[in-house]
Amino acid sequence: MENFNFYSPTEFVFGRGRENECGIYVRKYGGSKVLLHYGSASARKSGLLDRVIASLQAEGVEYVELGGVQPNPHDTLVYQGIEICKREKIDLILAVGGGSTIDSSKAIAMGACYDGDFWDFYSKKAKPQAALPVGTVLTIAAAGSEGSGDAVITRQDGLLKRGCTTDLIRPRFSILNPELTFSLPAWQTACGCTDIMSHTFERYFTSTEDVEVTDRLCEAILMTIIKEAPRVIANPADYDARANIMWAGMVAHNNIIGVGRIQDWSSHKLEHELSALYDCSHGAGLAVIQPAWMEYIMPQCVMRFARFATRVMGCKMDFEHPEVTAREGIDRLRRFFASIGMPVNFQQLGAREEDIPHFVETLGIGDGEIGGIVKLNAEDVANIYRIAAHTPAV
Amino acid sequence: MENFNFYSPTEFVFGRGRENECGIYVRKYGGSKVLLHYGSASARKSGLLDRVIASLQAEGVEYVELGGVQPNPHDTLVYQGIEICKREKIDLILAVGGGSTIDSSKAIAMGACYDGDFWDFYSKKAKPQAALPVGTVLTIAAAGSEGSGDAVITRQDGLLKRGCTTDLIRPRFSILNPELTFSLPAWQTACGCTDIMSHTFERYFTSTEDVEVTDRLCEAILMTIIKEAPRVIANPADYDARANIMWAGMVAHNNIIGVGRIQDWSSHKLEHELSALYDCSHGAGLAVIQPAWMEYIMPQCVMRFARFATRVMGCKMDFEHPEVTAREGIDRLRRFFASIGMPVNFQQLGAREEDIPHFVETLGIGDGEIGGIVKLNAEDVANIYRIAAHTPAV
Repeated sequence: MENFNFYSPTEFVFGRGRENECGIYVRKYGGSKVLLHYGSASARKSGLLDRVIASLQAEGVEYVELGGVQPNPHDTLVYQGIEICKREKIDLILAVGGGSTIDSSKAIAMGACYDGDFWDFYSKKAKPQAALPVGTVLTIAAAGSEGSGDAVITRQDGLLKRGCTTDLIRPRFSILNPELTFSLPAWQTACGCTDIMSHTFERYFTSTEDVEVTDRLCEAILMTIIKEAPRVIANPADYDARANIMWAGMVAHNNIIGVGRIQDWSSHKLEHELSALYDCSHGAGLAVIQPAWMEYIMPQCVMRFARFATRVMGCKMDFEHPEVTAREGIDRLRRFFASIGMPVNFQQLGAREEDIPHFVETLGIGDGEIGGIVKLNAEDVANIYRIAAHTPAV
Repeated sequence: MENFNFYSPTEFVFGRGRENECGIYVRKYGGSKVLLHYGSASARKSGLLDRVIASLQAEGVEYVELGGVQPNPHDTLVYQGIEICKREKIDLILAVGGGSTIDSSKAIAMGACYDGDFWDFYSKKAKPQAALPVGTVLTIAAAGSEGSGDAVITRQDGLLKRGCTTDLIRPRFSILNPELTFSLPAWQTACGCTDIMSHTFERYFTSTEDVEVTDRLCEAILMTIIKEAPRVIANPADYDARANIMWAGMVAHNNIIGVGRIQDWSSHKLEHELSALYDCSHGAGLAVIQPAWMEYIMPQCVMRFARFATRVMGCKMDFEHPEVTAREGIDRLRRFFASIGMPVNFQQLGAREEDIPHFVETLGIGDGEIGGIVKLNAEDVANIYRIAAHTPAV
């Protein structure tokens, strides 16, 4: 096991109706004037925003609204948010939404405490030294941003999608009410479940040996999603299934299951190019990329994929031909993604093979490599995109 | 799933040699004059205490020593520690040891900020309102106290063993170096592993339906210990096996795997009476009590025990007679405990059947009940003790 630090100080407030307590938690974590940051009109239409505002008002918390966060959140709104925070002397940012809204809030939180351009933290020109506190009211189980120190932002001009990671932006509190996810369409629910599984895969597929505890914890999350995703798609108001997915989404990404092991994150990097260019759902892009990546690297780490196939996907181990078991696990995963309505190839995603050189270039690998379990150079990456382009429909 | 709050703000500092950084973390969390609290002479003999002191001195941190913590830590030393903290204006307590030392430190931390008798928090006469920050350098994977808000203290005069739970005493930082556990005798290692499994069982065996995510996470911890305990007993210096157990011990008890479900804790309550009277190891007592409790309540929740038997203990499901599978799972658990050197009955533990009425009385159930998955009255409790008394050797 590798040495590590693990720090997850977020207070999670989980369950039915808990959004009505958000004013109390804003106060508890020092907020008196908040930036109320949210996405689409649905938060208003559903009445969620009204309940949040009522809770803020009950505690005498002032607020300034900033709506309009889009999936794959853009830097433009971040700049707007930073400007409001500085002008209005905001002391806490309350994100009401999913990963995009929370990531946008985190970027604003860092930018509000910085004199330069917040993008410096994303281009790695500067390291964040401070951030306003962030609280969240989560409306989709997917990104895990409610419990992570990560925030991904897309730059409008260059179609660049980049991440920043620091404990400074771990939310102080996150309110998780599974009921708020009842109204999600099946498509978004499935994208969210795919994202949760992918966050787990990025940790599970490792070159670190002998890390049974985090292996088993990763497998626990994967098996949970495989069980619960079809249930919520069949019955969107199944509270317990929604609740299992919601907690799994947090556990998958606050890193308690990923510590002490080399992580990979190639699939996320490859996918970010797709969603940056096509503005497709991150989860849908992952459903296409992750199995293609698995197929490509599997021959170099057969036993880990055989473990995945038998422990998670329910395959019988072929002890004479473990690679057969390994491949069967990847096939079953693709069939699982298809069964919940996810695309499995470029065509279904709306991606074009001719854009592959663009993706490879934008990834900026140059003569370098990416990846943890297996190192990938630019040619490897192109090959993985090509597998994703040519995967037959399930 | 039940509503819950989850808050685990401890910074975990994990890996080889990390105790040499403890001065840095003491400073980070506001310590300038610490109570250095520890147990036996082994911490000094091994050189650990010297390394800790060197790290404190390197950061200019003053310290006052208080050693002598015993297993099943007593209130007498807690009173002494509180007196020192008040007199010396201590601002952080650094526990170097296992669960007993950490629990003793937590009790001191609360008592140092309270004008009355700290036992008020254990007799439930008062609720703690403040506590000094606690940091830990862990030397045994067992109690999970390094990441929990719990502290158990034994009252010297009346042989009462009682617990107190509050987020106030969650450690600010905990340094976990698996190397520090290499020198533990097989007996203590096995007691620790049993304690970790029991912390998981108390959460796993629940009456809450449809909690797949925490079910799977609990199973992950149990399977990890079942794999790794025999490895460290065979090879005490197996770093990776020790590391897996150490992280599992934290995860088992910081409650991330137990949220949203009714927990039980009857076995812990029953065991506390044994270790209070005989001063036996808590883990050894649990190895005797927990399977007896399982045997007694299993007929009322057959399918949960069948799940345990198949998912964790590797039994084949008997779909026509699930209770056969359920019983086989309990039998296998007992054989596992015996295989790592644990007692499975009163005689092996050094307990006496004639003390059962004393245990039942001291538990103080009266006409009430204890337990989560199944409610137990005083007669049930006596029956469980009797099963533990009469279990045949494995």
